Amino acid sequence: MIPKYQDIQKAHERIKTFIHQTPVLSSKSINKILNVDIVFKCENFQKVGAFKFRGATNAVRLLTKEESEKGVTTHSSGNHAAALSLAAKQLNIPAYIVMPRNAPEIKKKAVEGYGAKITFCEPTLQAREETLYAVQKETGATFIHPYDNFNVICGQGTAAKEFLEEIPDLDIIIAPIGGGGLMSGTAISAKAINSEIKVYGAEPLNANDAFLSFTKGVLIPAGPPKTIADGLLTSLSPLTFQLIRENADRILTAKEETIVSAMRMIWERMKIIVEPSSAVPLAVIMENRNLFEGKKIGILISGGNVDLNHLPF
Amino acid sequence: MIPKYQDIQKAHERIKTFIHQTPVLSSKSINKILNVDIVFKCENFQKVGAFKFRGATNAVRLLTKEESEKGVTTHSSGNHAAALSLAAKQLNIPAYIVMPRNAPEIKKKAVEGYGAKITFCEPTLQAREETLYAVQKETGATFIHPYDNFNVICGQGTAAKEFLEEIPDLDIIIAPIGGGGLMSGTAISAKAINSEIKVYGAEPLNANDAFLSFTKGVLIPAGPPKTIADGLLTSLSPLTFQLIRENADRILTAKEETIVSAMRMIWERMKIIVEPSSAVPLAVIMENRNLFEGKKIGILISGGNVDLNHLPF
Repeated sequence: MIPKYQDIQKAHERIKTFIHQTPVLSSKSINKILNVDIVFKCENFQKVGAFKFRGATNAVRLLTKEESEKGVTTHSSGNHAAALSLAAKQLNIPAYIVMPRNAPEIKKKAVEGYGAKITFCEPTLQAREETLYAVQKETGATFIHPYDNFNVICGQGTAAKEFLEEIPDLDIIIAPIGGGGLMSGTAISAKAINSEIKVYGAEPLNANDAFLSFTKGVLIPAGPPKTIADGLLTSLSPLTFQLIRENADRILTAKEETIVSAMRMIWERMKIIVEPSSAVPLAVIMENRNLFEGKKIGILISGGNVDLNHLPF
Repeated sequence: MIPKYQDIQKAHERIKTFIHQTPVLSSKSINKILNVDIVFKCENFQKVGAFKFRGATNAVRLLTKEESEKGVTTHSSGNHAAALSLAAKQLNIPAYIVMPRNAPEIKKKAVEGYGAKITFCEPTLQAREETLYAVQKETGATFIHPYDNFNVICGQGTAAKEFLEEIPDLDIIIAPIGGGGLMSGTAISAKAINSEIKVYGAEPLNANDAFLSFTKGVLIPAGPPKTIADGLLTSLSPLTFQLIRENADRILTAKEETIVSAMRMIWERMKIIVEPSSAVPLAVIMENRNLFEGKKIGILISGGNVDLNHLPF
């Protein structure tokens, strides 16, 4: 089933009262430096500090009574795990999270804090999938994939919907691409609301599977990517690849050092904490000035969960 | 001349269109951890990243035509220098800033970026005052003191005025104390708007001149203080001491390690960048839980200018 804008509208009605309508901020000094007019949709202020709470909430609220009793599960060491845990907790639904043993302490604590049950596994994709399968078998919990999931994508699309309802006159909207959930939802919402808006994806050059897939027209999974943008390590799924091919105009990449500069620029000029993944859209603008000068650009800030003990500056 | 609330009201009318009405934010998780209901007035989002822009703007806009032509001057290596430079620039008034040679590069650049003329001096108070005197003599510029100045204090008081107009039902309001400009303005506004509100000052234990002065009833200047809260190194002036004695209820102190924990809590939980000085009010709550539990508390976040290369975590 392919998500349509009507599905995103329904998702928004469903989750509206449980999520934050996050603020839209801008910075005169960043605009002056880059000769642009950028507005930032700040999902770093969303619950659990990331847009992922939208998709998780939508998915959890659509479970049947029987599914709810058995709970939800996923494997993740990142924002989706925290988002799913909190979304489940709000409905008193059990959440079972499979996490690699070497996940950062802070992420383990966040998930535990939301009352989820963690099962640790070896830090390989195979171990994660096998452990998840075992947990599912034992508990009967429903697997909520972080992005290859209709309801999750519809939830993520509500961020761009809110954004464009508040700021309708964008020339370009840019979202970061990891697994493609945010990008898919953003592209569907943006094109439905105003087909003139250019929809760009932003990806680290060191994890450019979406760029390659989009350019070549076939799904090319990421090698083991090495990027500071730890939210963008995953590859597109068949579903998100299809949605992005159909709705996005272009995918642009940025170098690691530009991502760090962009992150620092946001921290210093805007006084907000964003994770490296969220800086990739601004980095893409910094590396492609001619595409963006004089334009009104909307950037989706995906989240603000960073380890303050390991900053890149 | 002693500032009254009417003077702050007039200041607010005067500067309103030139400043940001900064947002008020809160954090469910911080409230839960400390069993309080805290709202934060976020002057880190003010122009130049600090409340100082309010006082500087008010002072500069009250210059006579003749004074304006000759310009303004101050000695400062911090937020007041940047604030005065931008406030002057907006009116095409020359600004002459005396700065110690060893001021951080980033602060020099900020002031230069606002078009001010910097005169460097040795990093001693004596050298700063002598150099300022020489600059004044040469240029005829008006000295705008960072806090021992009627118009500056009235400008700073507009932050608490905005805050209480948006959130009228506070039990307690807390501001950090350095030279006492923000604290004086806050206390005057708060007591005038609602005499029931408790007004507390927050100071690093390692720079507790205001605490000692307030407690003993005589102005005791700071020794050379050593604190991470670099905005709070200065001592009260006779004027701010008088205003604080008359209007504040209490001054509380916090240890360095608590200030760092409070700063980190704000960064991690609220995803906003605040400077160490701004974390002192929360640190004071953390060290005096019994005074604050169950209360609705307003905290003035003074600014967000930190050197990302020298973070305490």
